[in-house]
Amino acid sequence: MVSAAAVDGVTSMKEEGDKDGLGLSLGERVRADFPILDQEAYPGKPLVYLDSAATSQKPKVVMDVLRDYYERDNANVHRGAHQLSIRATEAYEAAREKVGAFVNAETSREIVFTRGATEAINLVAQTWGLDNLAAGDEIVTTVMEHHSNMVPWQLLAERTGAVLKFAQIREDMSLDLDHMKSLITDKTKLVAVVHASNALGGVNPVSEIAEAAHAVGAKVLVDGCQSVPNMPVDVQTLGVDWLVASGHKMCGPTGIGFLWGRMSVLETMRPWQGGGEMIDQVYFDHSTFAEPPARFEAGTPAIAQAVGLGAACDYLSSIGMENGAAYEHEMSKYLWERLSEVEGLDFYGPPPNASGDNRNPLLAFNSRDVHAHDLSFFMDQEGVAIRAGHHCTQALHRQLGAAGSLRASLYIYNTKDDVDQFIEALRSTLDMFKAMDGDGGGAGGGLVGGEPSIF
Amino acid sequence: MVSAAAVDGVTSMKEEGDKDGLGLSLGERVRADFPILDQEAYPGKPLVYLDSAATSQKPKVVMDVLRDYYERDNANVHRGAHQLSIRATEAYEAAREKVGAFVNAETSREIVFTRGATEAINLVAQTWGLDNLAAGDEIVTTVMEHHSNMVPWQLLAERTGAVLKFAQIREDMSLDLDHMKSLITDKTKLVAVVHASNALGGVNPVSEIAEAAHAVGAKVLVDGCQSVPNMPVDVQTLGVDWLVASGHKMCGPTGIGFLWGRMSVLETMRPWQGGGEMIDQVYFDHSTFAEPPARFEAGTPAIAQAVGLGAACDYLSSIGMENGAAYEHEMSKYLWERLSEVEGLDFYGPPPNASGDNRNPLLAFNSRDVHAHDLSFFMDQEGVAIRAGHHCTQALHRQLGAAGSLRASLYIYNTKDDVDQFIEALRSTLDMFKAMDGDGGGAGGGLVGGEPSIF
Repeated sequence: MVSAAAVDGVTSMKEEGDKDGLGLSLGERVRADFPILDQEAYPGKPLVYLDSAATSQKPKVVMDVLRDYYERDNANVHRGAHQLSIRATEAYEAAREKVGAFVNAETSREIVFTRGATEAINLVAQTWGLDNLAAGDEIVTTVMEHHSNMVPWQLLAERTGAVLKFAQIREDMSLDLDHMKSLITDKTKLVAVVHASNALGGVNPVSEIAEAAHAVGAKVLVDGCQSVPNMPVDVQTLGVDWLVASGHKMCGPTGIGFLWGRMSVLETMRPWQGGGEMIDQVYFDHSTFAEPPARFEAGTPAIAQAVGLGAACDYLSSIGMENGAAYEHEMSKYLWERLSEVEGLDFYGPPPNASGDNRNPLLAFNSRDVHAHDLSFFMDQEGVAIRAGHHCTQALHRQLGAAGSLRASLYIYNTKDDVDQFIEALRSTLDMFKAMDGDGGGAGGGLVGGEPSIF
Repeated sequence: MVSAAAVDGVTSMKEEGDKDGLGLSLGERVRADFPILDQEAYPGKPLVYLDSAATSQKPKVVMDVLRDYYERDNANVHRGAHQLSIRATEAYEAAREKVGAFVNAETSREIVFTRGATEAINLVAQTWGLDNLAAGDEIVTTVMEHHSNMVPWQLLAERTGAVLKFAQIREDMSLDLDHMKSLITDKTKLVAVVHASNALGGVNPVSEIAEAAHAVGAKVLVDGCQSVPNMPVDVQTLGVDWLVASGHKMCGPTGIGFLWGRMSVLETMRPWQGGGEMIDQVYFDHSTFAEPPARFEAGTPAIAQAVGLGAACDYLSSIGMENGAAYEHEMSKYLWERLSEVEGLDFYGPPPNASGDNRNPLLAFNSRDVHAHDLSFFMDQEGVAIRAGHHCTQALHRQLGAAGSLRASLYIYNTKDDVDQFIEALRSTLDMFKAMDGDGGGAGGGLVGGEPSIF
């Protein structure tokens, strides 16, 4: 299903006749693979896309694979003996192999395709969670979790009487590992933790957390939405029980994501949604169910999207996750440095270390003078797409005393030039508000009473 | 988001210079819109795709809209104030409007996007169902339900102690409406019924069933997977409470479908999956939730797929659902007639009436001499793609005494020529087995002991 372009990797290198990419950064080399970046947000204002932590853009090869699927192979899977159905099934299962290999699963049968990470977490909460948690049991998580890794556990706690405990952050806004370990006790049945924070940027020591959890017999679920796209993730090295990720944040289509689960754990989980694909035998009065992963994939799956996600894994692998991560660490440091030159800002998240590998390439911040919403609005007019809001971490923002924040987030296709344009637009917007005598209002430090609707 | 091609409707008419389509059937006119049909399944064997009840093919305009979305507008929705996010949100919500209009919802806020019909049914079962059913309450459904409209109710019954009751079919394999009405009593809390059977082909009198159900205060869920793609469906006329359908069966992408629910009912339903989008306020110790439909759309939605489904609605509307249905009724009769000329077959489903409007354009059957699996295998070699199996209606097939059956299913792009080629391939395959002295084994009448793996 994968065209030559994907197997060969980065098409733009060849197109530009620069086979070795000498003198070009990774971002400059791969940029031509992402046609959406080559547009003006407004007339005369080229798009600077700095919202990849919300969703990544898609390389041409992924779009080509989607089109090829619909133009050549489209059929329902697992159910037909005809040519198209065989091809569609092979493409779908090949995608499962690719995703499995991408996170180093022991077998691709440990990969359950879902709509996204959110569905994957809810699947675990409503199957394993309902069956294994009771009143007084504890779920340990952190204050920096995305809503997707917080609300499902709240709903589960409400139904079971289990108790949620939140590990705090340190003063530098990195995870307070000591506090987290102190929360993990004999009462702990589950530890749910984000691998890399979508708001603070910090990368959490998941292996160490998993060790502490397993020592008391608790299971560990990791939200890999911001790690799987950005660094090599090896589920066997991490030593966790479940990992979830979203396809649309890792160059894949919308509408697809996955749950990786250790097979010995998946096998103990009862079905969640009922329907085709997940059954073995159906009688009027009862049914028996398929083995994982089929047990958890009720109904016609998101076939084209899974195939597209497989192509995205191929694309990222062709670049090399180590290469991508190294580039992003450099960019992360550059973003922090350049933004540090702007006065009057508060940053949210730990500063980068020497190698930059303690952070994802994103930075949330507020101006002490101008509201985040106003800043993002005027920067958008300059073509700079950043996010203003709570980034699905409302509770964390409340704790930080901020109604919301601005967030610039980078990916492999961003360049230092993007960061420079962002800084320039930020400066000119801040200057504009300054000239208006500071009427914009402040967003940091809880200076704003009401939350604008986008928060 | 919709290109001119979709707004103008059927592109092939113009391409062929036959603006009025004089002398051409609907199938002949729209065929060129579906590039996948123009291929050889094997060298020298043009593809004859007769498996549209499993999944429909996609018109070029839907693929174009998907590509345009990823190449121009891709961003996360509802959360950003930048250009791309605004455009993506508008496209996503415009798709909701299109789907709402397609089934004549009172407001597009009654449309909840799901992965497909299966997820939509599970959503109702695990929210409204869990909250409103108790031991002894009854769910009335039919023996012809697809697994997606049977297994979720079995799982719900197991958890609540509710009882499932199955309306029977008559001798001609149409729904026994009298039997169904006799099952609907004061104990009935829910009636779940398929609009058009994917196995038997019959169209059920949903309005009459809904009236009987509402008379006892029961709610009604309709599986519209095989009706929404094939006939005008008006939720207000049907008078039901929920309708579900799959996008991939109605010219849309995989990975998208919808739940329509009457707003007064949706408003009473608690959240199912937790995460972003579905919340109002999130605190560490609890959260409050958004109004429908957002309440039921946790996480980043299948944005591109929803937009693609909107384009599919535009495409089908440009043809006209009345026109499509009339053509399919004609084709349904032709399929029945031509297949009736072949000796030694058993049909499953009611015969077409004079206008053909009592059936969908599909026909399930078995040869008394050759196993369905063997027939489909050899017909595939001739390029004819039909389905062999239980078509996700295992319990029904057991009742009919068949391990499985063959099913040919047509859509707007099929022609009488497709049916003729299918009949020819069937005849030659049956002749081949006859020449081999009938060693193929019979599938009808329960003559086969074991079920092959595809069943």
